[in-house]
Amino acid sequence: MTLDDNWFTEIDPVANSAFSLKIRQQLHKEQSKYQRIEILETEGFGKLMTIDGLVMLSERDNFIYHEMMAHPVLFSHPAPRNIIIIGGGDCGTLKEVLKHPDIESAVQIEIDERVTRLAEKFFPTLCESNKDPRAKFHFDDGIRWMKEAPANSVDVIIIDSTDPVGPAKGLFSADFYSDCYRVLTQDGLLAQQSESPIYHNVTITRPMHEEMRKSGFIDTLTLFYPQPVYPSGWWSTTLAGKSAPITFHREEQSTEKPFETDYYNEAIHRSAMAVPEFIRRQMMG
Amino acid sequence: MTLDDNWFTEIDPVANSAFSLKIRQQLHKEQSKYQRIEILETEGFGKLMTIDGLVMLSERDNFIYHEMMAHPVLFSHPAPRNIIIIGGGDCGTLKEVLKHPDIESAVQIEIDERVTRLAEKFFPTLCESNKDPRAKFHFDDGIRWMKEAPANSVDVIIIDSTDPVGPAKGLFSADFYSDCYRVLTQDGLLAQQSESPIYHNVTITRPMHEEMRKSGFIDTLTLFYPQPVYPSGWWSTTLAGKSAPITFHREEQSTEKPFETDYYNEAIHRSAMAVPEFIRRQMMG
Repeated sequence: MTLDDNWFTEIDPVANSAFSLKIRQQLHKEQSKYQRIEILETEGFGKLMTIDGLVMLSERDNFIYHEMMAHPVLFSHPAPRNIIIIGGGDCGTLKEVLKHPDIESAVQIEIDERVTRLAEKFFPTLCESNKDPRAKFHFDDGIRWMKEAPANSVDVIIIDSTDPVGPAKGLFSADFYSDCYRVLTQDGLLAQQSESPIYHNVTITRPMHEEMRKSGFIDTLTLFYPQPVYPSGWWSTTLAGKSAPITFHREEQSTEKPFETDYYNEAIHRSAMAVPEFIRRQMMG
Repeated sequence: MTLDDNWFTEIDPVANSAFSLKIRQQLHKEQSKYQRIEILETEGFGKLMTIDGLVMLSERDNFIYHEMMAHPVLFSHPAPRNIIIIGGGDCGTLKEVLKHPDIESAVQIEIDERVTRLAEKFFPTLCESNKDPRAKFHFDDGIRWMKEAPANSVDVIIIDSTDPVGPAKGLFSADFYSDCYRVLTQDGLLAQQSESPIYHNVTITRPMHEEMRKSGFIDTLTLFYPQPVYPSGWWSTTLAGKSAPITFHREEQSTEKPFETDYYNEAIHRSAMAVPEFIRRQMMG
């Protein structure tokens, strides 16, 4: 079976696998200052955003990724108030963060303003909290921003970036994590998208744990979840704790959360912490 | 990006998505009495078996599916001794079942002997327990076999079939489940592959629960896990209990299991039982 020109395909060059979606029409295409952004209307996954030919999100399944980038780290922190999101231009993670009533401020540092402007136009449900007075937007380089941010000023940092190539590469390095460490408050937690458990654990996720610990974080923990549109259909978020082991600190509040989700709940949170045997062995070295 | 002729592609006609693997060479192709079987050598996933153009298994990731078809149901049963596997011609599930030292007999009823013969040739590690004296092979129709099997004679039935089309369609019906119910002993459990949570829950998995309960099973439970080569990369196994609620009955023994696995462990078993919010809502109707 071969696919005709009506399909968008993303090839994973390491696994030699590919994921494709049938396209109804192209809705938008532009070369921003940083990257090539496309918005496609698919037959089965709603609207799709790609950057430099790689899938960023689809309307159909982005809820899993965005919920797993926001709720586990927030319910693991004893009292998160001030949040920074690095990247996250589509605003889906921000929307989930702002569902938490105790959050006082959520600052998003996205390098490419065009991603956010296109999300507002083509993915309005992801942007429906953008006018929340707690949300602040800076279109700037997250690495430089973190270097200049005051110490002990942020409870949770969420790094919702593209893959560790191009502009996002520096977001996977000990230098950047050291700045995050400094900026976090004593109970501070960091959460970062950490690629596919079966494709990238040895090449990206395990080195990420090592870089985080080199930067002073005393604990790191990877959470696992499905994400059909990303390579292998299986994805992860890695947490790092500044001064305490990472636990499901506010499990009871998670059980009684005052907002709706489509994937996340307290059982899913606990389940995401289960480590498959092959990953456990790889992590031991 | 388009894929050239060096790629194998499986299209999901409902989701309008596709998964592809780059092929190094075709190793075998035949039309058996029942279906078209192909063995391909891929660049990144080892050997691949397809039936009628659909992926059955790859060397790289079959361990997740096979372990999740065997170990959760066996560690949920208080004392499994006699097992039937319907389908499972590649013998991967059988191999996992036979890792349990207390199993006395594992009978595999595969309709197409050619699947097993080709697995023996091209996937020898999956077949390494085929000479175990506890293993018995019948190449026969599982539906007829179950109709004729004696009542109260089997502790666990594992239905490791293809999708509910063609010869496997009858394996997803109340008629078949009623025969399974009769053949199971009082503590008996059934486990069946139950497709993709995000593609098929409403069309296949939820009706499966209903058919099982119609047939007398008093409890049903779906387990979730990743499976990169299957549509959406996210898959499930559904358990049904003849006379008792399904629990992780032998959790302690699972913690101290006397064999190695690559995906399954006791934490993974518990985690697979967590139900995502959208599935929970769909299951309520």
